[in-house]
Amino acid sequence: MSAALGGILLTALVGHASAQTEANRSARYFPDCANGPLSNNTVCNRNADPLARATALVKEMTLEEKFANTDQNQPGAPRIGLPPYIWWNEALHGVAEQNGVQFEEEGEWSHATSFPQPIITGAAFDDDLVHRIATVISTEFRAFGNNLKSGLQAWTPNINPFRDPRWGRGQETPGEDPFHLSSYVKALIDGLQGGEDPEVKRMGATCKHFAGYDLESWNGNHRHQFDAQIGSRDLVEYYMPPFQQCARDSNAFSFMCTYNALNGRPTCADPWLLNDVLREHWDWTDEQQTVVSDCGAVQNIYYPHRYNDTREKVVAEALTAGTDYDCGTYYSTYLPGAHEQGLIDESDLDMSLIRQYSSLVRLGYFDGPNSTYRGLGWNDVNTEEAQQLALRAAEEGIVLLKNDGGLPMKLGSNMSIALVGSWANATEQMQGNYYGIAPYLHGPYYAANQTGATVNLVNQPGGGKNNPTTDNLKPLWTAAEQSDVIIFVGGIDNDVEAEDHDRHDIGWSGNQIDIIERLAEYGKPMVVVQMGTMLDDTPIANNPNITGLLWAGYPGQSGGTAIFNIIQGITAPAGRLPVTQYPAAYIGQIPMTDMTLRPNETTGSPGRTYMWYEGEPVFEFGHGLHYTNFSASFDSQGSPSSYGNNTTESGASYSIQDLTGNCDERYPDLCPFSSFDVTVENTGSVSSDYVVLGYLTGQFGPQPYPRKQLKAYARVHDVAAGSSGSATLDLKLGSLGRVADNGDMTLYPGDYALVIDNDAKAVTNFTLTGEPVILDHWPQPPPPHFKTESYWVGGYPGTGPENQTSYA
Amino acid sequence: MSAALGGILLTALVGHASAQTEANRSARYFPDCANGPLSNNTVCNRNADPLARATALVKEMTLEEKFANTDQNQPGAPRIGLPPYIWWNEALHGVAEQNGVQFEEEGEWSHATSFPQPIITGAAFDDDLVHRIATVISTEFRAFGNNLKSGLQAWTPNINPFRDPRWGRGQETPGEDPFHLSSYVKALIDGLQGGEDPEVKRMGATCKHFAGYDLESWNGNHRHQFDAQIGSRDLVEYYMPPFQQCARDSNAFSFMCTYNALNGRPTCADPWLLNDVLREHWDWTDEQQTVVSDCGAVQNIYYPHRYNDTREKVVAEALTAGTDYDCGTYYSTYLPGAHEQGLIDESDLDMSLIRQYSSLVRLGYFDGPNSTYRGLGWNDVNTEEAQQLALRAAEEGIVLLKNDGGLPMKLGSNMSIALVGSWANATEQMQGNYYGIAPYLHGPYYAANQTGATVNLVNQPGGGKNNPTTDNLKPLWTAAEQSDVIIFVGGIDNDVEAEDHDRHDIGWSGNQIDIIERLAEYGKPMVVVQMGTMLDDTPIANNPNITGLLWAGYPGQSGGTAIFNIIQGITAPAGRLPVTQYPAAYIGQIPMTDMTLRPNETTGSPGRTYMWYEGEPVFEFGHGLHYTNFSASFDSQGSPSSYGNNTTESGASYSIQDLTGNCDERYPDLCPFSSFDVTVENTGSVSSDYVVLGYLTGQFGPQPYPRKQLKAYARVHDVAAGSSGSATLDLKLGSLGRVADNGDMTLYPGDYALVIDNDAKAVTNFTLTGEPVILDHWPQPPPPHFKTESYWVGGYPGTGPENQTSYA
Repeated sequence: MSAALGGILLTALVGHASAQTEANRSARYFPDCANGPLSNNTVCNRNADPLARATALVKEMTLEEKFANTDQNQPGAPRIGLPPYIWWNEALHGVAEQNGVQFEEEGEWSHATSFPQPIITGAAFDDDLVHRIATVISTEFRAFGNNLKSGLQAWTPNINPFRDPRWGRGQETPGEDPFHLSSYVKALIDGLQGGEDPEVKRMGATCKHFAGYDLESWNGNHRHQFDAQIGSRDLVEYYMPPFQQCARDSNAFSFMCTYNALNGRPTCADPWLLNDVLREHWDWTDEQQTVVSDCGAVQNIYYPHRYNDTREKVVAEALTAGTDYDCGTYYSTYLPGAHEQGLIDESDLDMSLIRQYSSLVRLGYFDGPNSTYRGLGWNDVNTEEAQQLALRAAEEGIVLLKNDGGLPMKLGSNMSIALVGSWANATEQMQGNYYGIAPYLHGPYYAANQTGATVNLVNQPGGGKNNPTTDNLKPLWTAAEQSDVIIFVGGIDNDVEAEDHDRHDIGWSGNQIDIIERLAEYGKPMVVVQMGTMLDDTPIANNPNITGLLWAGYPGQSGGTAIFNIIQGITAPAGRLPVTQYPAAYIGQIPMTDMTLRPNETTGSPGRTYMWYEGEPVFEFGHGLHYTNFSASFDSQGSPSSYGNNTTESGASYSIQDLTGNCDERYPDLCPFSSFDVTVENTGSVSSDYVVLGYLTGQFGPQPYPRKQLKAYARVHDVAAGSSGSATLDLKLGSLGRVADNGDMTLYPGDYALVIDNDAKAVTNFTLTGEPVILDHWPQPPPPHFKTESYWVGGYPGTGPENQTSYA
Repeated sequence: MSAALGGILLTALVGHASAQTEANRSARYFPDCANGPLSNNTVCNRNADPLARATALVKEMTLEEKFANTDQNQPGAPRIGLPPYIWWNEALHGVAEQNGVQFEEEGEWSHATSFPQPIITGAAFDDDLVHRIATVISTEFRAFGNNLKSGLQAWTPNINPFRDPRWGRGQETPGEDPFHLSSYVKALIDGLQGGEDPEVKRMGATCKHFAGYDLESWNGNHRHQFDAQIGSRDLVEYYMPPFQQCARDSNAFSFMCTYNALNGRPTCADPWLLNDVLREHWDWTDEQQTVVSDCGAVQNIYYPHRYNDTREKVVAEALTAGTDYDCGTYYSTYLPGAHEQGLIDESDLDMSLIRQYSSLVRLGYFDGPNSTYRGLGWNDVNTEEAQQLALRAAEEGIVLLKNDGGLPMKLGSNMSIALVGSWANATEQMQGNYYGIAPYLHGPYYAANQTGATVNLVNQPGGGKNNPTTDNLKPLWTAAEQSDVIIFVGGIDNDVEAEDHDRHDIGWSGNQIDIIERLAEYGKPMVVVQMGTMLDDTPIANNPNITGLLWAGYPGQSGGTAIFNIIQGITAPAGRLPVTQYPAAYIGQIPMTDMTLRPNETTGSPGRTYMWYEGEPVFEFGHGLHYTNFSASFDSQGSPSSYGNNTTESGASYSIQDLTGNCDERYPDLCPFSSFDVTVENTGSVSSDYVVLGYLTGQFGPQPYPRKQLKAYARVHDVAAGSSGSATLDLKLGSLGRVADNGDMTLYPGDYALVIDNDAKAVTNFTLTGEPVILDHWPQPPPPHFKTESYWVGGYPGTGPENQTSYA
């Protein structure tokens, strides 16, 4: 006789975590500060300091209750009226259906606005747009939270720079440029949290993933074990700026540490990173903000990082390094043992719990039903304004890459469209990942039908697959034959690029290029719309039979409408590529595991991003065509800190010592340098937005010099044909700084030029004189950590010890 | 208003090909040579020569009928009574349910014997076993064919050497050693076809993939575009031997050319490969055998290889190079145009059709219902003998990698087993790929229950995934606590390694090692059974708390029974690893795109296979433990061509000129050198099989010298404890040959040693003197083909032109 343990199978085990979340969700309630057991506790005293309130609460908890509340799925403490709380909520580009967030099947709370993925919103280069989107997201999210459909905070934004085109989660970020990301995240956090320093935050934002995280699973290198080797200079100038903005300058609610190690140390166990840099150097302590581990990252310190030899040591290291709670079960399972073994004190535990509850205090969690933002409800979700904004965001972000003059294109009831490609009838695809239930999903097929034209729809397979064969695609050719216009909407989606799944090539996959070329042979007006993140568009760009090429990424709930509005000229395109479009062969020249930015003769790296890549991009960062023409010029004006004129020759000169001597900010990089007023003139015949991109270039600081660096941008809206618009580009001392080998941000003497747009529509020069001055002393990291035996070291090139010279 | 083309969607397009196959299947019949329109055609004359019969048939076909029958899904020619025929049939390790093969839902023709994957049968090192398996497969296949459930030939075997552990289809092959593959395939083809030179073949075998195919999709390098760069020496000594065996020595029914290019030329368009080597050098012409393209490979010559600039040129190139029919639709679609453009003559078409129909003649297709093998029917399928053989094959192939003495292990009704791991309840998983419907699938859970023990089954997730977390696995720990013995059955399966999907790491994936180590902490008797192809077993091998480790690969319909028979000692293990088990870091040292075998200081390659790998394998090729001990010795005997004795010192000396002067074979490498008789003694206490592996090593030929090379093997069955068995190892002149740079197989003077088994149980030395003599002049390839613009060149390291110095 035999007996299975209740026939436990795969699904039962997988369902276990959700069951716990489900239990917490159904038990969710707000603390009852009026009549509950906590009513007399200081935590319920709205006049008390948040730290005092949280401290008073934690004081009431037993040791067991404390251990039980160290993971993301907190049971609370029913004994004292502390409700369960689920920390895992997501709101990347709208209220997302994940873990703590619960959508109803129909009626109220059954949907929320679904904006484009950040990569498209980033392409708008419009911080005001970002702020408005974030305000809608946090308003809707708070409405869900008020009604116990979610928590009050979420693990958003993902603000790691999009370093490598293969990254499966690059779509979650605004792009590859660190200034762009910092500027974007400043607007985003302000919009999510409800201002720069509100007493009660509308919603809590979490800047992730801190730091050096941008590899999922590439060629055997997995995020759970990957050890990102990043020198101080690259760290400070490229990987850190958005996080510095989050912590030091935008007072972000919380941070998330990563799966990967950074220079040999798993970040969730790295006191240098979480304490010396984050909490001390960036002074991110005044609100007792929390650090959460990525889900499973604490366990990963033990396996597969093998960073210490017992699970108890690992949780103790993480807790004392500054990881306040664990997304996982390792803290609640092994902290009791760590405590018994004397590896942690109860005070270590208290600190992390106080941080968590003080954070919840800041969200008004203990402030009762009449507190700030608690009035937000279902009427604040999916408003007419939110719907318009979602469409507007997609329109602003879509980039016109190629136009032979045939765009915009009239489409109407007397015409027929062959609408083909793997995205032709897209719905959820338009949302990318971390999405919620949208009120509607207006994809290309929907939008094509709105034009009144006859739509011959063929969704052909193969977009995301390796197989390049085109057998049995007769319906495609029939549609092309029968139609006046061909619109191909394809590319890649989350079957190809995704969390836990990087790409291994960046060409158009499967049979798509063959199909596109065969369709082009019909010689009809033909538009290709490229979805997903960057692909090498060379064959489309070079094909004289293809009228136009749009990049539409993941455009959200109204993506199809936005695409067809642009194709028809109802909206004029003005988006710009937020990333470099590399040729397909690029990824054969640099492994994804190489975290360096600069070209390197020894490794053969051609460099990364528009700042350093020395090859010829297919389309460069910032590229984006219009339906009109623009010119730009610097304004001459009286302000002592402004200068310029539209000239490349004459320029002012400044003494570094004067500039820094007049600066009394705690962080000198924040002192203003100058504002540059730019006038933009629409010299064509179509009203259009225009994005002013301000690049700094010149001979200063350590060599090699970057090609250029974005230091300011502004989107000028609705410049009518023949009219002008204006923008102001604010440069700070930090905008001029470059980073020394040891990570010190430094002001260097030399010749500077501020250049408007990729084609240098206007240039102004200036000179800095005097001795270099350090604007920011980078906390020096500890000596390299020697990594012991590691098993799971697969991958080519490997990340095993034999490939990590820095460990030697 | 708008209208979709009948709402054509993804599934409709995907289904198109199957619909055509389905139509052909339902229209399938045998040619009616008694009363049909062909009855007076020579094709129906059993006394005529096959070539004459086929020629007569093709003469009756119109040009349109000829074009229509150039793809694998042949409509035939109903006008003249020629039935449709589907060439795409599979029988890798049993009648496979694919394309031309049709299983019924129940009753007759609802199942067929499902043997282990070739990688496990290969591990048995038992050519007689292979022959018996092939005989069963061809018998059952012919029975299906006779009843119009399949064709009469199949596209099996896959005989590319298993060069790189990442290869997703390595499971389909017998292993990494070219001699082993050649010996295996000789037995296999004999068994499939029904003898060495039968007048009517029981079944047609297809040796694939010719040549240089062993990469699916690795790091952006796709099989449809990959260009395998292989020098003549590596080609002749490693990649070609099994194909030479197929064509020259075993008269295989047909060949399949590949997706990949070989040295710049897509193989299906390479007249050097298909004509100079295959048909001329190997004299593979006397039966007008056919070459078929892999499915889509003809199209791939056009895209993504971009080998020529029109589709018509591409099909003309393929046809005239010697690809007789196309798995795809390119031939039938574009050959008519190629003919119109004068790129092919009708005679080119005739040749390919004559080859096809002459091949069908050889299968008795036109011989009527009373011809050879037509009597095989349902009673010949799934016989008791076949069932026993499937179990026996699994038992012979399973390899005991580690045993601390705790195996065999008593399991019975008074015991409880924690049976855990992602394969614990495996069924179809045991069949790998290209499988049919088995009569039953006796997996580990079934077999564990047969022992009478209480079985606590927990299938935990994560085996095939990247995620290493172990949250929420309480049922696992509970099962371990409650049981006397722990048996973990895991590893990888076709979710991880598969067609079109190579691996990017070779460590145990996901959380499995963490789980295994935690289970081992219980200190109970514990066996790990590793499924799938090789993983780095280091942590299991080194863990003192793990009793034993078996490798069971993909063991087929009785895999679970075989595993538990070995664990319990009902059967003694004697399988040997047919591949090297590399450490996980290996794949960080050599890209999968590197086709070279020898270590290379410039590229950093540590070499491939047991012959060249200079690192320390985890378990070496040929490794396999027994439940007893064996010794071996060479017999001294009177035959003039035998010598030896169990000694490493004294040896005979031979003149190369004498050896070759006495040889009058057309192919001198086939002349006998010597037979070595080996006596094997079981010095332990358990009756067991023993595999005699005969390696050749020594200082001769071009440097560097391989570590050793397998040149003969034999499985000695059922050697009783205290008894002896014997085997004869036949060496030919070719066994002694090594290959010059230009591919010439050459006999070199020098010191030779024949070594028995990995631990050198016996060694005999001999010397060759005189001048080198070329045994086989390799047809020299044409100058490198200059590859023009290629778009889809992703991957790291890349295969784009910039990485292909041979194109320069």
